[in-house]
Amino acid sequence: MKELTYGGIEAGGTKFVCAVGSHPNEILALAQFPTTTPKDTINQAIEFFEEQNKKAEIAAIGIGTFGPVNLNPASPKFGYITTTPKPGWSDTNFKGIIEERLKLPVTIDTDVNAAALAEHRWGAAQNLHTFLYLTIGTGIGGGGLADGRLLHGLTHPEMGHIRIPHDWQKDPFPGFCPYHGDCFEGLAAGPSIENRYGERGETLAEDHPAWSLLAGYVALALNNFICTLSPQRIILGGGVMDQDHLLQSIRKNTLNLLNGYVNVPEILEDIDNYIVRPQLRGKAGVLGAIALASSA
Amino acid sequence: MKELTYGGIEAGGTKFVCAVGSHPNEILALAQFPTTTPKDTINQAIEFFEEQNKKAEIAAIGIGTFGPVNLNPASPKFGYITTTPKPGWSDTNFKGIIEERLKLPVTIDTDVNAAALAEHRWGAAQNLHTFLYLTIGTGIGGGGLADGRLLHGLTHPEMGHIRIPHDWQKDPFPGFCPYHGDCFEGLAAGPSIENRYGERGETLAEDHPAWSLLAGYVALALNNFICTLSPQRIILGGGVMDQDHLLQSIRKNTLNLLNGYVNVPEILEDIDNYIVRPQLRGKAGVLGAIALASSA
Repeated sequence: MKELTYGGIEAGGTKFVCAVGSHPNEILALAQFPTTTPKDTINQAIEFFEEQNKKAEIAAIGIGTFGPVNLNPASPKFGYITTTPKPGWSDTNFKGIIEERLKLPVTIDTDVNAAALAEHRWGAAQNLHTFLYLTIGTGIGGGGLADGRLLHGLTHPEMGHIRIPHDWQKDPFPGFCPYHGDCFEGLAAGPSIENRYGERGETLAEDHPAWSLLAGYVALALNNFICTLSPQRIILGGGVMDQDHLLQSIRKNTLNLLNGYVNVPEILEDIDNYIVRPQLRGKAGVLGAIALASSA
Repeated sequence: MKELTYGGIEAGGTKFVCAVGSHPNEILALAQFPTTTPKDTINQAIEFFEEQNKKAEIAAIGIGTFGPVNLNPASPKFGYITTTPKPGWSDTNFKGIIEERLKLPVTIDTDVNAAALAEHRWGAAQNLHTFLYLTIGTGIGGGGLADGRLLHGLTHPEMGHIRIPHDWQKDPFPGFCPYHGDCFEGLAAGPSIENRYGERGETLAEDHPAWSLLAGYVALALNNFICTLSPQRIILGGGVMDQDHLLQSIRKNTLNLLNGYVNVPEILEDIDNYIVRPQLRGKAGVLGAIALASSA
């Protein structure tokens, strides 16, 4: 049987990545452009797929998008971007516009659920039924599978917004989340580093106190996700995680926090294989969009 | 078709409740006895079912048990109680002993997943695919469904052991969890009240500061569960929740913490219907065990 070809859109807050293909080793075309107004940006995506469709017939489109997005199939606003602070994007019928213009089936989910799906099919989460994909960059988001199903519910998870212990004496920074101040994202996403130290994380030395602070916050969050979802593995992506020493330190801190309570060898004896990087690296997002299209 | 009859065991830390039946309105027999040694307690359960089996043929047994319990079907220790501090119970082949003695199929899960299943079938979570059942008593545990499947993963959730912000100035109590000190359970389960104030919760007036402290901690935990799992509803059971004013206060605190970020009418406009009591009250556990048996 010939493998079908799909279109994938990784819709990020700063850029869109569009691809046509079926597999990490079978990407026929790729385009990338900045996220501007919904009209212009979605148009560019549509034109890319129209052009590509002349070369290889596209069977369906997948979208992995920034949020919040309405993922309730029973809602009249299913597939809409909801209340984003992103100028112009609130109440955009993202799924509907693409569907109407391209006359193709469209599957939409969060960027992190899409990336999780790609890691499940081709990357670090193969053969797992319950795992977490977390991205720590300019924001923090989480997705994943629970017993083989992508995490959805009332709406989609907002894992960056859990509350974690914050020692104000050690770290007087109030957090930068406009909704919650010192939630996980407010304390540990990329901008928290610039806000605290006036420098971007990339420029800070390995022994800068920023890193142990961040590792502590991420470990607190992982402890909570482990106790809530019991994932078989946690995949940590995003720009902040580019530091190798940070990953090591997060593993150590997480073990300390759990303190042997979750008494399984996968954690106690093999933490390096429990908290891992994405195997698909920067490509997880757009490949996830293709995976969404093909799993519809 | 005649409805089949099942046996259910609610295995609690202080007592066992066993029942035979098929439905909340169709309980043929019920027995209750203290949890002592595994040998004596499991024997009592087996003898009860042997006796009942003479009157109505039992098709299968369900167990909703205290934990931790091995729920990995691929493990040679599947259905064993694992590392509990409960004297004698570590490494007890709970599922296997019952199976062998009664020659019946046995389904085992956590007490909270069992209660969640009962609320899903007959109670406060009917027609929901993703929800949380939380019990706050001498300990804190959580279970539920994600997209229609009971929450499992590497092992089962341990929701009482998430870490939440703890203001040491306002509440110098270090928490009573032997593993984590001031995790959610350590700060907010029943014994925390006695440990802080020297009195049991039942004896404290409605305006005692214990209640606002507890409501704050529970709301922090609910905020985290909402951001992680996006449940369509949260059911709060357990002895501590017997106070009506506490439930009201938890709802208010949870709304304040979310601060409008999870922008859905189910939370913003209908919190009284979002954070609720179990409909099956004290019977959720043993009915859940029957539900487990019948869903196998």
